[in-house]
Amino acid sequence: MSTNGDRAFPTPSVRRLPIYLSLLRRLYRDGLESVSSTKIADELGLTGIQVRKDLSMTGIVGRPKVGHSISELIEHIEGFLGWDKRRQAFLVGAGHLGAALLGYKGFAQENLDIIASFDTSPEKIGKVILGRMTYDLAEFVAMTKKHHVQMAILTVPASCAQDVTNLMVDAGIIGIWNFAPVQLSAPPHIIIENVSLSSSLAILSQKLTQREAQTRGKSEEKS
Amino acid sequence: MSTNGDRAFPTPSVRRLPIYLSLLRRLYRDGLESVSSTKIADELGLTGIQVRKDLSMTGIVGRPKVGHSISELIEHIEGFLGWDKRRQAFLVGAGHLGAALLGYKGFAQENLDIIASFDTSPEKIGKVILGRMTYDLAEFVAMTKKHHVQMAILTVPASCAQDVTNLMVDAGIIGIWNFAPVQLSAPPHIIIENVSLSSSLAILSQKLTQREAQTRGKSEEKS
Repeated sequence: MSTNGDRAFPTPSVRRLPIYLSLLRRLYRDGLESVSSTKIADELGLTGIQVRKDLSMTGIVGRPKVGHSISELIEHIEGFLGWDKRRQAFLVGAGHLGAALLGYKGFAQENLDIIASFDTSPEKIGKVILGRMTYDLAEFVAMTKKHHVQMAILTVPASCAQDVTNLMVDAGIIGIWNFAPVQLSAPPHIIIENVSLSSSLAILSQKLTQREAQTRGKSEEKS
Repeated sequence: MSTNGDRAFPTPSVRRLPIYLSLLRRLYRDGLESVSSTKIADELGLTGIQVRKDLSMTGIVGRPKVGHSISELIEHIEGFLGWDKRRQAFLVGAGHLGAALLGYKGFAQENLDIIASFDTSPEKIGKVILGRMTYDLAEFVAMTKKHHVQMAILTVPASCAQDVTNLMVDAGIIGIWNFAPVQLSAPPHIIIENVSLSSSLAILSQKLTQREAQTRGKSEEKS
């Protein structure tokens, strides 16, 4: 028995794969058939070593002189990410952010299909938002089991995010894409990926604040 | 002259600060006045050492026996992040994601005020979306200079993200919060923070795909 399947790949490398895909698709549209890792590195401001390491993670064998076939690279990366197969997901929380994700066109390329959304608000239940029906959250468990859905997108307020997470776990959801600004607790077999707008804003605000303090310091020195 | 202002703080620590804030505000609402770093660590599943390191970054002096005053902690963290002062920002790209950010209530607590949005689409220009006027992108440079805005949120399609970035730089924007799925080029003094939905989805999809392969492997072994 191989234990390879248990291996956790480095997060920064996996995060870079969509950026490679985006570049490779552009080069392919421009009529190119092959590309070297050095060229990829130059285009993306990375080192050649980093690019070769990232690509080899997906099972691609390097070809130093010839370069890689672009269509093969795309195929490998998509396969590694599971973007070569259609994945169905439910969305819980049909507010502004939920609607934005329902309307996000980029997911088509990533083969993500948000098939329905759920909410507890009587004004939203039964409404079709951007082509997807909004169901009563009370139907979530039954619907998840019926459609064998394994992934759910969480766009509810922080205050009810943990309760909805518990419901998702009970329903058999395995992967939760969490947009609520809260740390969720879940059994270890559940995969949680957080998109924290607050954390991202914190990084930007802190740097801007620091920059402003420097600028003030410099102008005080001059005066 | 101090060079302290040039110091880059560790990204994972800065990313955790909003999570501390959220916990501290809850404890404060519950009537608590002080808290130890050990209690914070327990609540958030971190180590005490990590919490003490993160908090000391904001300039808080540890008080081992007494614990920290919660209101002082909140003040320090907010000050460090610049969330104690109102920050104005412009948003460019009034599509679904742009509207979601205009409607996101969490930003009030972070003192971020998106004062207007910009677009090139004639159907959107002149419309008020969630209380904010949508202006013609052609007015961006003049408006940015007039209102001394330093931060902009980029929610345009990938294909025009670089052109809009160039415009932002010309207008004097210093901090760009980028939601477009593309690596932007900008002069070194520009602060760019990327929210990459594709990269986050890549992490979740890859783990789900790996899990499914394992499950298939195990059921094949059994049969």
